[in-house]
Amino acid sequence: MKAPYSFTFYTASWYRRSPYWQRTVEAGCTSWDLYNHMLIPTLYDDDEREYWHLVEHVGLWDVAVERQVEITGPDAARFTQLLTCRDLSRCDVLQCKYAPIIAPNGGIVNDPILLRLGEDHFWLSLADSDAMLYALGVQAFAGMDVTIREPDVSPLQVQGPRSRDVIRSLFGDAVAGLRYYRCWGGDLDGIPVVVSRTGWTGEIGYEIYLRDGSRGIELWDRVMRAGEPFEIRAIAPSDQRRLEAGIFNYGNDMTIEDTPFHVTGMERLVELDADFIGKEALERVASRGVDRKLVGVELGGEPFRMWLEDFWDVRRDGEVVGRLVSASHSFRLQQNIGYVWVPIALAEPGTDLEVLSPDGPVAAITAPLPFLDPHKDVPKG
Amino acid sequence: MKAPYSFTFYTASWYRRSPYWQRTVEAGCTSWDLYNHMLIPTLYDDDEREYWHLVEHVGLWDVAVERQVEITGPDAARFTQLLTCRDLSRCDVLQCKYAPIIAPNGGIVNDPILLRLGEDHFWLSLADSDAMLYALGVQAFAGMDVTIREPDVSPLQVQGPRSRDVIRSLFGDAVAGLRYYRCWGGDLDGIPVVVSRTGWTGEIGYEIYLRDGSRGIELWDRVMRAGEPFEIRAIAPSDQRRLEAGIFNYGNDMTIEDTPFHVTGMERLVELDADFIGKEALERVASRGVDRKLVGVELGGEPFRMWLEDFWDVRRDGEVVGRLVSASHSFRLQQNIGYVWVPIALAEPGTDLEVLSPDGPVAAITAPLPFLDPHKDVPKG
Repeated sequence: MKAPYSFTFYTASWYRRSPYWQRTVEAGCTSWDLYNHMLIPTLYDDDEREYWHLVEHVGLWDVAVERQVEITGPDAARFTQLLTCRDLSRCDVLQCKYAPIIAPNGGIVNDPILLRLGEDHFWLSLADSDAMLYALGVQAFAGMDVTIREPDVSPLQVQGPRSRDVIRSLFGDAVAGLRYYRCWGGDLDGIPVVVSRTGWTGEIGYEIYLRDGSRGIELWDRVMRAGEPFEIRAIAPSDQRRLEAGIFNYGNDMTIEDTPFHVTGMERLVELDADFIGKEALERVASRGVDRKLVGVELGGEPFRMWLEDFWDVRRDGEVVGRLVSASHSFRLQQNIGYVWVPIALAEPGTDLEVLSPDGPVAAITAPLPFLDPHKDVPKG
Repeated sequence: MKAPYSFTFYTASWYRRSPYWQRTVEAGCTSWDLYNHMLIPTLYDDDEREYWHLVEHVGLWDVAVERQVEITGPDAARFTQLLTCRDLSRCDVLQCKYAPIIAPNGGIVNDPILLRLGEDHFWLSLADSDAMLYALGVQAFAGMDVTIREPDVSPLQVQGPRSRDVIRSLFGDAVAGLRYYRCWGGDLDGIPVVVSRTGWTGEIGYEIYLRDGSRGIELWDRVMRAGEPFEIRAIAPSDQRRLEAGIFNYGNDMTIEDTPFHVTGMERLVELDADFIGKEALERVASRGVDRKLVGVELGGEPFRMWLEDFWDVRRDGEVVGRLVSASHSFRLQQNIGYVWVPIALAEPGTDLEVLSPDGPVAAITAPLPFLDPHKDVPKG
């Protein structure tokens, strides 16, 4: 399976650069993606080498593209609750939530990590859509007293089995010991940061949210220095690792056309005790059920490379019934894995399918998510 | 002045392709940009050659990235009015408007061309931001009966002095004779389209909005065939030509941080007789005045190439006072031109400035917009 089509890309002033840009170039980054109107590293030297470094040591990702929507003001808690189907009455200060943002018709606007930094202080750490515009639209007639803005915040992810050592060396035991989906605010010798125990890998991992873009190089260098004993290196986000973990890529795997009930593993995120926009629409979906579903799939054929260049049709009994939206090769499972949209009747694990790759048909079978359970030992490659 | 930094870009399933993609590859496109999560041609062979073809003959642009927000339903007119500072009581059916979308605080959410296709049927033909999310947010509490969606619409631009001949050959005299900012709906031997007399050039030009993505190749081939006698060729949107015309690039020249009163030439678009979101904020700006302004600038030095790789600082009397956000070389004016943000005290045309290029300081002087008046004869190159 060949790598995706590539071409020469010219940078331009309309693509914002991260505060770490210069360091990613120096660290050997060779290709970037566009995400939230910014450049994000997508390949340094080799996706397989980067994958193994992530799962065996520790990797540093420039994810400044995770832009924050900051909501503050007397009505911040009530307003933020309007935006997401998670029940925020059960969200403590310094707690995080995987918090899908829901449109009036139940569609997914974005699937950020929500950070509650204070009683009246929230961040939505965005996937790739301009969800701040959604919040501003809601503000127009919600009649609530809130301030909505994009603060000067640029996250790094420190992910992998040695990430805890790196964070301990930088911030001490308490921060290194953060429970999953908890966060801490403070500074690193005067560099203002928030640190959360979250990430896009299923590995042990942390995010460091830099709160002053002018100090990006300084922070990057501090993290690299602290990580040296643990073999830290700059890598790109790993499509393989996030697929193993059953993590989604908004705008690709699911869009505003889909509700959380359409996506395996997101159903549990709809907490109907809360009052939020789109709740009635989701109640209707819940009672009627969905007609199609995003599910895991294992695929035959040669090892896939990198990521899909385009969606592939999915056939059952010779008829096109859905599409493959993500797929790559799990180097640990030694198996091609991905996500397919299928009619609900074909959503059960173990359903035989055929996907139409540009090189011909490939056998496929639906599978439970995640492919790798983070709470169990994983096979060594 | 060297060309912007470039690297190898890998396509991915999360970047949508236009229905014309295959034809743009065959026509020799060598580089694409990302815009509204889709790929848009940015360079075929040479930006100067493409510019001259545009201003002397006729060019065909794949601008399927101009995604539409469609607003329909009994309250469509009232709802659409909420979104924009233009007075839609003066917008006929089949009329278009350059219609900035305004946030509650007066910021610009997007600067689409609005098309009124029926009494209760509007399209917003978007620049690069997810403004549909803004409309969905407004819908949440506006209490109006509207349907908001992204229809299957993929525009082409046919721009340049011979564009009228091409449109006449395809659609006849009536469509070729459309007045500026008027549109027409119909079909081309069964291919459903809307045609508008609009474009991003200041040249005579049209947009053909394909209403069925499955027929993209067919439409492209029809346009190319009709254009053959007039030397039509596929080109990329021209940053030089749009700068000459005083046209803006949303997300680069101005953002949600700016109001129309901050941008030279957009002031006239605020029509305070209309009732829209952000009106009070804009009234406050109107009465207080703005503290900074986006204005035209002429620059010395060697001819600039393509477009800016990054913003450049702007100095006055040795102090940084603003930034250059767009600049390129007008091949007809034989002059570097661009846009700068400056304090209002320096916004008058004729103000001497200095911009800090990566190669050193460049003399600059503020200038009225547009650089080339489309209603006057333009110098021949």
